[in-house]
Amino acid sequence: MEKHSMLYEGKAKKLFETEDPSILLIEYKDSLTAFNAQKKSTLSGKGSLNNKISAYLLEFIGSRGIPTHFVKIVDETHQLVKKVGIIPLEVVVRNITTGSLCKRLGVKEGVELKKPLLEFYLKDDALEDPIVTEDHVSAFEWASPAEVEILKRISLEVNKLLKERFLQVGIVLVDLKLEFGRTPDNTVILADEISPDTCRLWDISSGEKLDKDRFRKDLGNVLESYREVWERISKGEKR
Amino acid sequence: MEKHSMLYEGKAKKLFETEDPSILLIEYKDSLTAFNAQKKSTLSGKGSLNNKISAYLLEFIGSRGIPTHFVKIVDETHQLVKKVGIIPLEVVVRNITTGSLCKRLGVKEGVELKKPLLEFYLKDDALEDPIVTEDHVSAFEWASPAEVEILKRISLEVNKLLKERFLQVGIVLVDLKLEFGRTPDNTVILADEISPDTCRLWDISSGEKLDKDRFRKDLGNVLESYREVWERISKGEKR
Repeated sequence: MEKHSMLYEGKAKKLFETEDPSILLIEYKDSLTAFNAQKKSTLSGKGSLNNKISAYLLEFIGSRGIPTHFVKIVDETHQLVKKVGIIPLEVVVRNITTGSLCKRLGVKEGVELKKPLLEFYLKDDALEDPIVTEDHVSAFEWASPAEVEILKRISLEVNKLLKERFLQVGIVLVDLKLEFGRTPDNTVILADEISPDTCRLWDISSGEKLDKDRFRKDLGNVLESYREVWERISKGEKR
Repeated sequence: MEKHSMLYEGKAKKLFETEDPSILLIEYKDSLTAFNAQKKSTLSGKGSLNNKISAYLLEFIGSRGIPTHFVKIVDETHQLVKKVGIIPLEVVVRNITTGSLCKRLGVKEGVELKKPLLEFYLKDDALEDPIVTEDHVSAFEWASPAEVEILKRISLEVNKLLKERFLQVGIVLVDLKLEFGRTPDNTVILADEISPDTCRLWDISSGEKLDKDRFRKDLGNVLESYREVWERISKGEKR
């Protein structure tokens, strides 16, 4: 599939039109950013790993009945996806307390939650993606109340599926960030990527971080950790 | 009633024990603070006005069946209240968009909301009172799910009653902040004050602010505006 004009360049991906107006081509970049892009770096091979991990996970949850934007992988750094109108929200599902949650609310790190905690954030870089409530989402019409119910249901289901899948390869899914879009007929489907850039993943034995926190916290071995995640899920072997 | 030892000194009030262990004495201070106490001032007569306004409004909503901590006014700057265990949340009800809501979420100022918007904030000065969702409140056990339902129901009812009451004297209730406590038998009742320090009040004709925003925004005539609110509600006259 031929690349046409670039629609959008984000922090970690570029989006291109294709000859099919309903299909876009995503290029996964090697750039890494954190703290609302105040910290930036490039890591050769990261784009390829996230392209493969995300394709694998989107295909996996798609096979379990979750509607996603994923169509197919094209090459090392490219995949085709359905074109959607993005819903301007990030949905975060947390299984264990860590990160911004602990900093913002002063709660203890590393505590397993009795049930998954779901949060909405408004996608707005200038406002630094503020947390919002369901009532804000409805009041300011970022999504309809019916859509909010779908976002919640799909997010909790994806969290459940991925938690189980990662556990099979000795990885704890600590939290994950999801984004959604509307198809031309207004069906809400999962969009964006699912990768170590958007999930927190801890080795079940050592507790070692296998995700973007290695970059955020300067822990080193960022690429090696992403590769470890890819090798474990693609080979399905438990270490 | 004799003042015993001081239990607590807050930004705008002091709390004393009395000879009755179930009753506390509140002293309303003349101090004004804003922006998490980064801006401070003293205004002679403010304490007296807030003591009278709060007593009046708590008595008014009490007469409409809302359980509150208010017992009786004692003198110019003191009132007696029931001793409660404070629930560590602030409940904000907004009828019109303004203030932190607009700044944080980038929404337009001065827009009338289709229905009142309810928000919870964690009472924690060190964390600058972060906004929280109902799910946070349950997950971290700041209040039980049943208590959350009571907080929501009472807050919306108080907003409705006060909106109507203020409208009778030509004042628009823009938003208000409420706090709650638990009695020894774990009944949830309204606590804290209701005053121009905790409500946004706009003159219906001129749009002039009659509340703490005059202090926050250095608009002048702070005391005069508080006195105006007291005179209108106590005399019941519409100007």
